[in-house]
Amino acid sequence: MSIQSFMPPQRTLMGPGPSDVSPRVLSALARPTIGHLDPTFIGMMDEVKSLLQYAFQTKNTYTMAISAPGSAGMEACFVNLLTPDDTVVVCKNGVFGARMIENVQRIGAKVVVVDGTWGRAVDPQALEDTLKQTPQARFVAFVHAETSTGALSDAKTLCEIARQYNCLTIVDAVTSLAGVELKVDEWGIDAIYSGSQKCLSCVPGISPVSFSDQAAQVIKNRKTAVQSWFLDQSLVMEYWSGQGKRSYHHTAPVNSLYALHESLIVLQNEGLENSWARHRNLHNKLALGLANLGLDFIVPEQERLPQLNAVNIPQGVDDVKVRQILLNDYNLEIGAGLGQFAGTAWRIGLMGYAARNENVVLCLAALKEALTK
Amino acid sequence: MSIQSFMPPQRTLMGPGPSDVSPRVLSALARPTIGHLDPTFIGMMDEVKSLLQYAFQTKNTYTMAISAPGSAGMEACFVNLLTPDDTVVVCKNGVFGARMIENVQRIGAKVVVVDGTWGRAVDPQALEDTLKQTPQARFVAFVHAETSTGALSDAKTLCEIARQYNCLTIVDAVTSLAGVELKVDEWGIDAIYSGSQKCLSCVPGISPVSFSDQAAQVIKNRKTAVQSWFLDQSLVMEYWSGQGKRSYHHTAPVNSLYALHESLIVLQNEGLENSWARHRNLHNKLALGLANLGLDFIVPEQERLPQLNAVNIPQGVDDVKVRQILLNDYNLEIGAGLGQFAGTAWRIGLMGYAARNENVVLCLAALKEALTK
Repeated sequence: MSIQSFMPPQRTLMGPGPSDVSPRVLSALARPTIGHLDPTFIGMMDEVKSLLQYAFQTKNTYTMAISAPGSAGMEACFVNLLTPDDTVVVCKNGVFGARMIENVQRIGAKVVVVDGTWGRAVDPQALEDTLKQTPQARFVAFVHAETSTGALSDAKTLCEIARQYNCLTIVDAVTSLAGVELKVDEWGIDAIYSGSQKCLSCVPGISPVSFSDQAAQVIKNRKTAVQSWFLDQSLVMEYWSGQGKRSYHHTAPVNSLYALHESLIVLQNEGLENSWARHRNLHNKLALGLANLGLDFIVPEQERLPQLNAVNIPQGVDDVKVRQILLNDYNLEIGAGLGQFAGTAWRIGLMGYAARNENVVLCLAALKEALTK
Repeated sequence: MSIQSFMPPQRTLMGPGPSDVSPRVLSALARPTIGHLDPTFIGMMDEVKSLLQYAFQTKNTYTMAISAPGSAGMEACFVNLLTPDDTVVVCKNGVFGARMIENVQRIGAKVVVVDGTWGRAVDPQALEDTLKQTPQARFVAFVHAETSTGALSDAKTLCEIARQYNCLTIVDAVTSLAGVELKVDEWGIDAIYSGSQKCLSCVPGISPVSFSDQAAQVIKNRKTAVQSWFLDQSLVMEYWSGQGKRSYHHTAPVNSLYALHESLIVLQNEGLENSWARHRNLHNKLALGLANLGLDFIVPEQERLPQLNAVNIPQGVDDVKVRQILLNDYNLEIGAGLGQFAGTAWRIGLMGYAARNENVVLCLAALKEALTK
């Protein structure tokens, strides 16, 4: 056995994530590793926390980064808040809503599903109807930006409804954070998780999370241990919190947190509203170009995510062949369909550092060529 | 708020981990991110698997890297193998044995503890005595290299005993992998997890794991779902396995896996036996130097880990002050005591890339100066 160093090709990443990582973030990633209890590192973690509070638009004390991908962030929210006695209303309109249901079931809690349409936003009326019939519900969970379909749900309205029925909210913001408007405090979101590898354009592997004071109280008042030791936030917070001595829980992914810190500085410098506008503007250009190519969107215009463009693959076009051409001849990655849309849709990401004019132009031109090959 | 880019100091990391990461591995880490389903990346993952099989000395098909730190690797082994009906014998001789117990309890399984002495190897006779009285036990779990105390247990013998009593073994090799002899197949280990940030000298955040065919069978034959969706190996294996189409489970930490790949190539090129010998030889030099400084080891000579040297802090010496001097004036990190040894011990790591002659010399000279300041 003699395996050589791996030299990846230079791709343009316009799939559902990971998105392109800027040279600036890669450079931060490669800075010398220091100890996870080094005072210098602890200082940087405090900055990550402040920067995440900005990105989430929250003052939540319990704001930090889980040392694992977004699906672990999802699990962290569910296992810390829920006990088997709880009832949770989960809005499902794609793969990630379905994954939420899996999480609830593995805790042994009761799940009531608001079964939505793939490719559509969650229907607020359907949520309200379900809550009326589910007085025992304590939580409402939904996906803000469904990465599997490209649908954007109205998180503000869904949270209002949940509050009217005395439910706390658990929100998947993996693909939404930094790509579309998201205001955790103003909208009253209680638990939210995201991913590093979408509109933050950091390397994959980290999940920013935030818990409202009320959610933190639920965790604090638990009478049974969280079923995951690794994701037990009452333990993790002793390491992340700014109060007194930091106690060791697990070894933080030091370098990945350098990268997250840098990607959040890039966001801070651009400004959140500017980042949202950039995603929207480039989406408009991409959407126009895709229409010119005869490709139609799965999601109705008012419910579309600018950062995740799901289009139907035209009849007679070979899904795999086109994506292979794009990858091999243009070093361009777009996403395959997922779940119900496997084989029938493409998902074109415009996330973070990948959301640049040159990428939109490249993608449209390359797609045009590939479709006629 | 205007937070600046983080420029970490250049430390020498001789604590309990993370250890120094070589420029070569940092350079691999910063290579351009590509998609986690990119065929090029999938090819690299196959190489990671082969390289891990070499490092673990196993032919296990179920060998891969968990996308999270070693404590998640620990949890992955327990939650996949155990159900609440099981009885597990856990050997505890430090912090990480205690963490194993936490894991078993959170599954709701029954744990029988072999309560060992901190700073000593696990006593094989005590394990056998316990197994005699625990015929219902299905698993034996122990820590090969106790990072909290610096004790090395005789994994080969412990596995033999476990097998005599028809138990599968779950072994913590977080600090042992690549630092001391470890032979998964020859010793008959059934489930093993390690960490990227110890003797592999990769960045923290990844946990190599391996399951024997028999352990894989236990996972396959489960009648209930694994309580963690993120760590459910039956799902993860569909992404990592070489059979047919890779299906998406979660977004792999692409860049961290570049780094793991590179660190494993470094190990492959050095040779496993040479790596073990290097750790041993430098430990001998360090131990002699520490004795000359009047520092005595916690662990008896025959049970010492070369890569984790725990010494008693001499009476009258200010623990925190000495470590601060080392960090501030020499950019040298050594570890504080943990658990029972907090405040009374130092833990000096000699792991992976940090296990170099110049570091031993620096550490001894700096300690000598710091102790007399």
